[in-house]
Amino acid sequence: MKGKFSGFFEPDSVVVIGVSANPGKSGNVVVRNILANGYTGKLFLVNPKGGEILGIRVHPSIASLPEGIDLAIIVLPAKETPQALRECAEKGIRHVVLQAGGFAEVDEYGTEIQQELIAIIREKGIRVIGPNTSGHTSTPHQFTSSLFPQGKIRRGKVSYLAQTGNFATHTMRYILTGEHFGVARVIGLGNKIDIEESEALEYLADDPETTAIIMYLESLKKPRRFLEIAREVTRRKPIVMLKGGITEAGKHAAVAHTAAMAAEDRIIDGMLRQAGIVRVREYTHLILAGKALSMLPLPKGNRVSFLTPSGAMLVVLSDLCMSLGLEVPELEKETVQRLQEISPPYIRMRNPVDIWASASVQGVEYGYGQGMEAVLKDPNIDAVVPVLMLTKDTGVPPFDFIIKLAKKFPDKPILVSFSAEKQSMDECKEFLEPLGVPTFPEIEQPFEVLSILYRCNRAMNRPR
Amino acid sequence: MKGKFSGFFEPDSVVVIGVSANPGKSGNVVVRNILANGYTGKLFLVNPKGGEILGIRVHPSIASLPEGIDLAIIVLPAKETPQALRECAEKGIRHVVLQAGGFAEVDEYGTEIQQELIAIIREKGIRVIGPNTSGHTSTPHQFTSSLFPQGKIRRGKVSYLAQTGNFATHTMRYILTGEHFGVARVIGLGNKIDIEESEALEYLADDPETTAIIMYLESLKKPRRFLEIAREVTRRKPIVMLKGGITEAGKHAAVAHTAAMAAEDRIIDGMLRQAGIVRVREYTHLILAGKALSMLPLPKGNRVSFLTPSGAMLVVLSDLCMSLGLEVPELEKETVQRLQEISPPYIRMRNPVDIWASASVQGVEYGYGQGMEAVLKDPNIDAVVPVLMLTKDTGVPPFDFIIKLAKKFPDKPILVSFSAEKQSMDECKEFLEPLGVPTFPEIEQPFEVLSILYRCNRAMNRPR
Repeated sequence: MKGKFSGFFEPDSVVVIGVSANPGKSGNVVVRNILANGYTGKLFLVNPKGGEILGIRVHPSIASLPEGIDLAIIVLPAKETPQALRECAEKGIRHVVLQAGGFAEVDEYGTEIQQELIAIIREKGIRVIGPNTSGHTSTPHQFTSSLFPQGKIRRGKVSYLAQTGNFATHTMRYILTGEHFGVARVIGLGNKIDIEESEALEYLADDPETTAIIMYLESLKKPRRFLEIAREVTRRKPIVMLKGGITEAGKHAAVAHTAAMAAEDRIIDGMLRQAGIVRVREYTHLILAGKALSMLPLPKGNRVSFLTPSGAMLVVLSDLCMSLGLEVPELEKETVQRLQEISPPYIRMRNPVDIWASASVQGVEYGYGQGMEAVLKDPNIDAVVPVLMLTKDTGVPPFDFIIKLAKKFPDKPILVSFSAEKQSMDECKEFLEPLGVPTFPEIEQPFEVLSILYRCNRAMNRPR
Repeated sequence: MKGKFSGFFEPDSVVVIGVSANPGKSGNVVVRNILANGYTGKLFLVNPKGGEILGIRVHPSIASLPEGIDLAIIVLPAKETPQALRECAEKGIRHVVLQAGGFAEVDEYGTEIQQELIAIIREKGIRVIGPNTSGHTSTPHQFTSSLFPQGKIRRGKVSYLAQTGNFATHTMRYILTGEHFGVARVIGLGNKIDIEESEALEYLADDPETTAIIMYLESLKKPRRFLEIAREVTRRKPIVMLKGGITEAGKHAAVAHTAAMAAEDRIIDGMLRQAGIVRVREYTHLILAGKALSMLPLPKGNRVSFLTPSGAMLVVLSDLCMSLGLEVPELEKETVQRLQEISPPYIRMRNPVDIWASASVQGVEYGYGQGMEAVLKDPNIDAVVPVLMLTKDTGVPPFDFIIKLAKKFPDKPILVSFSAEKQSMDECKEFLEPLGVPTFPEIEQPFEVLSILYRCNRAMNRPR
């Protein structure tokens, strides 16, 4: 039996309405993306000119399509959209993605067209994502409606629910070209004239392909329903959210106005926390959280050990842990003894770990490898961050020792950062990430991410 | 006439005491670094074994050196250091860098040796940097005493004064391999038994090669003197500081203790602000500030315009600006008209600028180029941040148009960030940065950096 939204996420047949032979147009890119992702269902194209595009026959009209198509992607200018939507409904198509912009987000005229779309949806009982969306993605079904050139989208287990098209456009392209993790489902909500955040969240809650959810929202259309669903989901699947527009109204604001926004923001903060949603404050943290949730187990607690080649880094990262709610606890006596064994005597070993001398004298693999193993074994430690010192001159080791440690301690997340030579950092990332160990170019990021993961774990296990 | 610290920063002759033939040892790396930087003065080496290292004759003892050497770099174990320091003084060497660790930072025995060094310094009236330092650097003099493999250190106009060796070791190596800016002077203070932060700052204050100062400090040895000097310098040269150890004492702390630290930290905060020092909270921001101060003019005010390919980015970056104290003002009517001219009509153009449609339809160079020029011309705008959307599919332009705009508007900093394809982002950085326009991999960073630059400008122009 197929689920409620299978028409969107597991369509057996799809039609793209408004295809174009011009590779620069969305109506062409959508088709290329569908082909590049290896979609195995039936694909139909519509353009009044007919002919053939990308080797596929083009139907001249919606009326000329066969019956029973699951999903339509409408890539037409705003003003042509209502008519196309009506014809889709009359052809028995129950699921539609509306990609054009030019609706309520722009002007009065757009608002009128949007009202017309809403009336058609009510009348015909069809389901719509958009308008003003860049599309949606379903990697388990090898399918996307993205209008941005993507190529094959990597499969993963984290899903993205967003009031922006970025995760179907340039941010996804960054993830595919700059990172090594994939996605399960992506939903760009657009103007939310039908499907909004709570129903989409309900779908992801029950989706077996989704183990965690990354969200970007600017508004809640049905806040009570949304929070009710979130309260339940977050006990099973982490939700990490960035709320945009917290100072929207305050754009030209006086200080007093800013203060008002801050008060409102504290209320939102409390509501989200009660629902078990982990809130972040930076867009970049959404991507980093997506990466970490794709690769790592959640830490059992907030107790971290880290190894750096610098006393100053030990100090500033201890400061950072404190401000992020992470603990840097003392180690067991045996752990300290082991650390002291692997280091020259002129460094006093403890947590956090000054690994400079050990790595300099005994080599990076020995110093970091033995040091990490010692702290990973320690029952006081929930997660470990090595800041690797990498230079060709002092020797760049094979990074397999980190993969081995990650396998040996599968319950303790390892998050890697670096110092020194850029090229070696890049090589380290290229080696470790496809094997499941995330790396972070800035030394603060592993801790910011750990704090997010820890809050996810705390939300999942919060008292009822 | 030579200045007070010319023995350190413009030595005509240098001796490295404790050289080694083993390329893995500091006593070898120091010499390689001196040679790699093209030091033009006389270089002497000392090791009891004599012979030759790196093609240079090795003197068997300090006593066998000629008279009148400006600077000694002592690379010996802690316990051999006092004797070497005494012999240097007796040989008339007035400036010494003490590199070994193993002093007061480690144990009682180390503390005793350190006391002995202090006694020698007092008795002989010599000047010492360290001990427990990784060295210092003076690119205008093509000289460094760094013990970490660096190669040629790029010359720049920003100086680094730090209670850590990082800017003579791995962080400098990162700057040299991952960034395109250089440094003027670097001073790693180490245990500060003689030269401490206030005297070092005094030197940099009057140093014509230094236009801005990046500092990392954990403690102030002479706080009143330091703040007195800073108060004056910051009217001429920006100081950006990270204070480490704000929760040092609170490492195993209860909540009450943390609160106490926070109160103490607020006092430090006020003192630094009064002295015109711009405080940052992340290590990475020191590097980013160094980069920006090396490349950009200070913005005249806090009014920013930014161009992004995403409505969500416009929203979250507006939120960020608000939290950073940056304004995103309305534009002149003519500017808005011009922006509307370059965009399809279904986007309402204003500040911040949604450049998605314009760049998609008209190309990245036209959309961003024309858009940036319009906002750069606007008298309400002090700085501009384009978040470039770069993909091979949609077309990656030559980036020369950004350099031209930077030259045309020399008083308005341009800070570039990106979205989409990693390889194009890297290529953009490689093109722009050697020509003086900084780029930042994360969309939040240009704004964090602008906020630092704006605070620098405000500190310079603060009322007396």
